[in-house]
Amino acid sequence: MKSLLGVTEAERRIHAHMPSFGTERVALDAAAGRVLRQTVQAERDQPPFDRVMMDGIAIASTFSSPCFAGGGWEGVKLLPFRSKATPPQPSPALQGRAGEGLRRFRPAGLALAGMPEQVLDDPAACIEVTTGAMLPRGCDSVIPIEQTRRDGESYVLIDGCEPAPGQFIHPRGADCREGEILMRSGMRLRAPEVAVLAAHGVAQVEVAKRPSVTIVATGDELREVDQALAPGQIRRSNDRALAAALAARGFDDVERTWIPDDLDLATHTLAGLLATRQVLVLSGGVSMGQRDFVPAALHALGVHEVLHGIAQRPGKPMWFGVGPQGQAVFALPGNPVSALVCAVRYLLPALERAIGLTATAPVKVVLTDAVATHPALTCFVPVAVQHDGHGRAMAQPQPSPTSGDFSSLPQTDGVVELAPAAGAAPGGTVAVLHRW
Amino acid sequence: MKSLLGVTEAERRIHAHMPSFGTERVALDAAAGRVLRQTVQAERDQPPFDRVMMDGIAIASTFSSPCFAGGGWEGVKLLPFRSKATPPQPSPALQGRAGEGLRRFRPAGLALAGMPEQVLDDPAACIEVTTGAMLPRGCDSVIPIEQTRRDGESYVLIDGCEPAPGQFIHPRGADCREGEILMRSGMRLRAPEVAVLAAHGVAQVEVAKRPSVTIVATGDELREVDQALAPGQIRRSNDRALAAALAARGFDDVERTWIPDDLDLATHTLAGLLATRQVLVLSGGVSMGQRDFVPAALHALGVHEVLHGIAQRPGKPMWFGVGPQGQAVFALPGNPVSALVCAVRYLLPALERAIGLTATAPVKVVLTDAVATHPALTCFVPVAVQHDGHGRAMAQPQPSPTSGDFSSLPQTDGVVELAPAAGAAPGGTVAVLHRW
Repeated sequence: MKSLLGVTEAERRIHAHMPSFGTERVALDAAAGRVLRQTVQAERDQPPFDRVMMDGIAIASTFSSPCFAGGGWEGVKLLPFRSKATPPQPSPALQGRAGEGLRRFRPAGLALAGMPEQVLDDPAACIEVTTGAMLPRGCDSVIPIEQTRRDGESYVLIDGCEPAPGQFIHPRGADCREGEILMRSGMRLRAPEVAVLAAHGVAQVEVAKRPSVTIVATGDELREVDQALAPGQIRRSNDRALAAALAARGFDDVERTWIPDDLDLATHTLAGLLATRQVLVLSGGVSMGQRDFVPAALHALGVHEVLHGIAQRPGKPMWFGVGPQGQAVFALPGNPVSALVCAVRYLLPALERAIGLTATAPVKVVLTDAVATHPALTCFVPVAVQHDGHGRAMAQPQPSPTSGDFSSLPQTDGVVELAPAAGAAPGGTVAVLHRW
Repeated sequence: MKSLLGVTEAERRIHAHMPSFGTERVALDAAAGRVLRQTVQAERDQPPFDRVMMDGIAIASTFSSPCFAGGGWEGVKLLPFRSKATPPQPSPALQGRAGEGLRRFRPAGLALAGMPEQVLDDPAACIEVTTGAMLPRGCDSVIPIEQTRRDGESYVLIDGCEPAPGQFIHPRGADCREGEILMRSGMRLRAPEVAVLAAHGVAQVEVAKRPSVTIVATGDELREVDQALAPGQIRRSNDRALAAALAARGFDDVERTWIPDDLDLATHTLAGLLATRQVLVLSGGVSMGQRDFVPAALHALGVHEVLHGIAQRPGKPMWFGVGPQGQAVFALPGNPVSALVCAVRYLLPALERAIGLTATAPVKVVLTDAVATHPALTCFVPVAVQHDGHGRAMAQPQPSPTSGDFSSLPQTDGVVELAPAAGAAPGGTVAVLHRW
């Protein structure tokens, strides 16, 4: 740890040295939560046809309504009707009533969702339609079933029902046009994105490969969660916490292992991991004490040190380097709070960026109370966030007395980042939040 | 759909009728993301011993420093030292120098992390220590290695190093006490919670069982993502989107299926699902048209209707009922935006509550622009959220022209909920956000 880097410079150096992990094609069923790495274009117009929006009847309102002569169609694009349909001609028997508007319609056909296009030949009749059906050719208006009553065979419009052209029709192409770009590389695939992929026939999706990650706990004092403890021993917890943090961001090719405080054994184990894994995340052994053998072991294995030591609290001893084949090696401090802070501030953002996730704007919160700052170190302080009645995210500081005090972290949402400053950040300070 | 319920009453009725899904014990490795359903108590004091916080040397500062007589220990609980250690006695050769404070220490032992407690017999000597080691008995202060230099065999404190009692020692029990309640039922297990579980020996965790869910797309017009489309057909997308929404909240026992617009076939399929699955989520077929057979099919199968129709836009036709064995049946509208809105407003919160997740306060955002409201219906409007320089979450409305327009939803973070009102909600309105 020669000289301490600022957090922004540390972040910049890490990002600049991250490898790429490539892409892969997965079935749409396996794509939720992944990061899209292709452009998605509309397979066809959406809706692909003038789509009926209500169960009811479809009619030729331009014949039956007073709008017939006036052309009340501005702004409504009903392609099949306009481009393909023969304009409806009044049947001889009804011609005299056209000006009054028809109120009674004899069903002349049925258009169900999924059926090919039906045709209304007699503009004084109607076609029974269901939601999702193609608008029958010759029709320009849908009357919801609730606005009709049956009289014998016929439908009669109830009082107050004044059919307008285009009503309850979702025009072809209103949502998007064939070939239009709907999504670009870098989006996380949530429910809306999956809906768009499915609707546009993307059965196989190009997504970011997730790197293989091994988390390496270091320290003679560590025992597994189900092992008996001798005096002086504690349980491994950082490796599991880091695995949980990675899993929450979708990184699930994650293994955990452990190395003792022994340079030779550590070097041997790390050599094996460097040969098979793309990202190593160590915790512990990176300070400058005689037992902090991690940098030495990594150096011996040809891992190039990119940084060692960041001007921050907690997490000052953090180390990052790049292996001979471009492997990313994050060596985090061993204290639980330090390890988690370094994970949410450096590890997770670097991995997300490396797999191509488009960066989102930072989440900014308002401190409810003053927090001590440090003149030379960026401070990360745990906070619990609540939204107030003004739409502000209010962050209540819950500082840990030391970076070994993590029992109260479950009450918090993450840490705020406070730049170096003498004194304190007063209540009301706006700060960036890094969520657990 | 007799009369429309308000959204709050609809939510209340759904929550009141949700079944319980029980709990199960899983290995800690499989617990990340699950909902805790037990109380977690501290296995022992944390730290479990007075813990060395830096690599360096441990000394008896109360002998060697001017604090020896003064008792500068207020507020620091060093149990082993106080309760078990014999107060250090100056060795004869050094007695005359005690008042000046010692600056040179001969190493008399080594305390590594993981070793049982060591003892400093000669208070003028020191024990070499590493981070995480038990503080040796007889010591009360740790000098970081950086504040020493070697002179032959001995360590010499550098100028300016004035050891204080208790420094760089994390006292036993400072973080928590054995038996203390650390976490209660209802927490989502993120990284900090997993760290606490691991540190306290919880190898098997009692978590909420996740219900078995089947999503049922309805409609003759629907084809799978990789099938050829005839005129009038569209692709199934709601079922996949709903599965993605469920997966994002940790519900992963989710299957998808499809039923045609046929009462008998639908009833047969739904009967089989009710016999084997705990939650059914249908989309489509719940309006009041002749082809909206879903309520009838469910009624025939003994599914008790709890609600049908909510005073909201979109999503008005939503139906919810309870099966003979308490199965929860959500029948969502078929329009993509409606289905997603009903999922984030009713389905996901109801499932999360049913598995025991503690409710969190709603996220409130500020509208950047006016949005039209409805005098009688609660409106849900898609928004894109950015945090401004005042810590406010600013939500830019991106209304869909119709509930069938979902191509632009990938640009949004969720929907805001706007209560019935004449006119519009002006820019600056604070509204609750439901994230996708």
